[in-house]
Amino acid sequence: MSLPPLKNDRLIKALLRQSTDTTPVWIMRQAGRYLPEYRATRKQAGSFLDLCKNKELACEVTLQPLRRFDLDAAILFSDILTIPDAMGLGLYFAEGEGPKFERPLRSEADIGRLGVPDPSDSLRYVTDAVSLIRQELDGKVPLIGFSGSPWTLSTYMVEGGSSKEYRYIKGMMYQNPAALHQLLNILAQAVTAYLNAQIEAGAQAVMVFDTWGGVLTPQTYREFSLNYMQQIVDGLKREHDGQTIPVTLFTKGGGQWLEQIADTGCNALGLDWTIDIDQARSRVGERVALQGNLDPCVLYADPVTIRAKAQEIITRFGDHPGHVFNLGHGIHPAVNPDHLGVLIDAVHEFGFDIRK
Amino acid sequence: MSLPPLKNDRLIKALLRQSTDTTPVWIMRQAGRYLPEYRATRKQAGSFLDLCKNKELACEVTLQPLRRFDLDAAILFSDILTIPDAMGLGLYFAEGEGPKFERPLRSEADIGRLGVPDPSDSLRYVTDAVSLIRQELDGKVPLIGFSGSPWTLSTYMVEGGSSKEYRYIKGMMYQNPAALHQLLNILAQAVTAYLNAQIEAGAQAVMVFDTWGGVLTPQTYREFSLNYMQQIVDGLKREHDGQTIPVTLFTKGGGQWLEQIADTGCNALGLDWTIDIDQARSRVGERVALQGNLDPCVLYADPVTIRAKAQEIITRFGDHPGHVFNLGHGIHPAVNPDHLGVLIDAVHEFGFDIRK
Repeated sequence: MSLPPLKNDRLIKALLRQSTDTTPVWIMRQAGRYLPEYRATRKQAGSFLDLCKNKELACEVTLQPLRRFDLDAAILFSDILTIPDAMGLGLYFAEGEGPKFERPLRSEADIGRLGVPDPSDSLRYVTDAVSLIRQELDGKVPLIGFSGSPWTLSTYMVEGGSSKEYRYIKGMMYQNPAALHQLLNILAQAVTAYLNAQIEAGAQAVMVFDTWGGVLTPQTYREFSLNYMQQIVDGLKREHDGQTIPVTLFTKGGGQWLEQIADTGCNALGLDWTIDIDQARSRVGERVALQGNLDPCVLYADPVTIRAKAQEIITRFGDHPGHVFNLGHGIHPAVNPDHLGVLIDAVHEFGFDIRK
Repeated sequence: MSLPPLKNDRLIKALLRQSTDTTPVWIMRQAGRYLPEYRATRKQAGSFLDLCKNKELACEVTLQPLRRFDLDAAILFSDILTIPDAMGLGLYFAEGEGPKFERPLRSEADIGRLGVPDPSDSLRYVTDAVSLIRQELDGKVPLIGFSGSPWTLSTYMVEGGSSKEYRYIKGMMYQNPAALHQLLNILAQAVTAYLNAQIEAGAQAVMVFDTWGGVLTPQTYREFSLNYMQQIVDGLKREHDGQTIPVTLFTKGGGQWLEQIADTGCNALGLDWTIDIDQARSRVGERVALQGNLDPCVLYADPVTIRAKAQEIITRFGDHPGHVFNLGHGIHPAVNPDHLGVLIDAVHEFGFDIRK
């Protein structure tokens, strides 16, 4: 089935460092709990996983923020832990505690039993949702596909859930690095196949979330996180249907390692808020686009402050191609949705102004 | 009462960038839950706060790790939240949930009611413990006093406990910065008075823990955290009883801002593990000593690996004065105490070797 051409291509152009009329903007977790319509659909679906696995409802919540806000992209509604779930670890969500696995990986034997999931089989619900969203978007804005990074997925799989100390995964990293490398190799293959399947189903850009890369040392970051993101970048379909598919890598807390991330050959870097975007640009800006980098807590402030903070980031980046505005992390559930509207309109306004 | 001269002055010398025979080492939270004798004393005391407020038991747990390990310093056993407790916020510890305040600060009126606590009154239990520990140490090793940074204290005081999102404190920061500045000003005065009281009672070095400075943007870090640590550095007694009192500042997650922290005029910087110590040294090493920077999770590995990782950091720092070995954060409760012994002996061994 043929899909309509893209009406708003700001995101794709900015990720490829081409000129745009204004700064494109999308928001991590833009389909999420801060929206009352999301909470209603979530209730209808049952559990969070039920929502992820129901393509009609996943499509519905993906589109909800686009009905409210002048966003330049949609991002697939899904969870970063779909791959380990498809590997049979038994993902569940304990209320108020975040994700958990019934069968965390604690031994070489546990890792030895893992296989690379076939995206057309156990992850079919994801690619089905991608196809449906692309149809429903009707070319309005591009659809972003995503995955967790191998390192970030492995932290959940070995710890059995979220972690503060990373006791088991780092214990394995320092005590039995070969076992961890085996796991990360499998995950790099799985993520590559998964993202390629999303691209084939219609994702027009992809992003790898390395949420926990920032808890590593410089050396272990290179060896256990960046190395496997490099494998993914090398293995992705960078063109589909005659269109270039931009790849964004985002290591939260990775401000000290931007040059190395840019060296992977990705198209864009995600930035959290601990670095000024002009400084990041002067370090890597001629090689990659930059996506970010507003502190999500700015959305708790008043509209005047929100506008000022948006303007500051746009001014710091300056009149160059290659900036996609975003928060430095997901939007918080307690944010007033109207404040997000103020931010998005301010980005477009100041983005136009700086190009005059 | 006169106190005996210091027999082991490696720590003080290294903090002042003077030569030592080997690399001194102490461990953040060296008096803590990983030690069975600590857990026994803690049980005897009742609550965690009862332990902090009982000078004999606080002295006992301070000395416990020195009986097991060849440490080059003792650090006062206390909590970073003693100041807000003395301000009347009602500190308590919910089992498994960390510190909480009964009366968090949520308004300007709440902040307007705060005063600077007199250390000789509501914090007398701390200075009494310092004096007693100095006596009991009998000059064996120096005693380090400490406080939380104003920003870090304010996060707990406004959030009412630990936080992941920093919703209330950052909301205040962006929405009503004047109110937060008022709070931080009071806290900077309180911390200065508190550390000076510890120095007068016998602390031979002091350290400010800015545990949550790393969640800020570069600009808000300077304005809301570093600015107030600067006030503290400027207000501290840098000499007592004819001895120089070195000051260490430690912002966890502050690797991008080391130059600015060094510019405060402190004597030493604490480093977490997200930066290589040779790189940190080349950025600031001629101005300040460096303390760190082993990933605490290395202690989950085997002795051979622990020794190799200790040697790597010592080799990276090289044969220069001004390195105090430490973990990049507190020791984890699940660590095997014997592994810490391996680390400490390795530091001394490789520290001697590199000076040959």
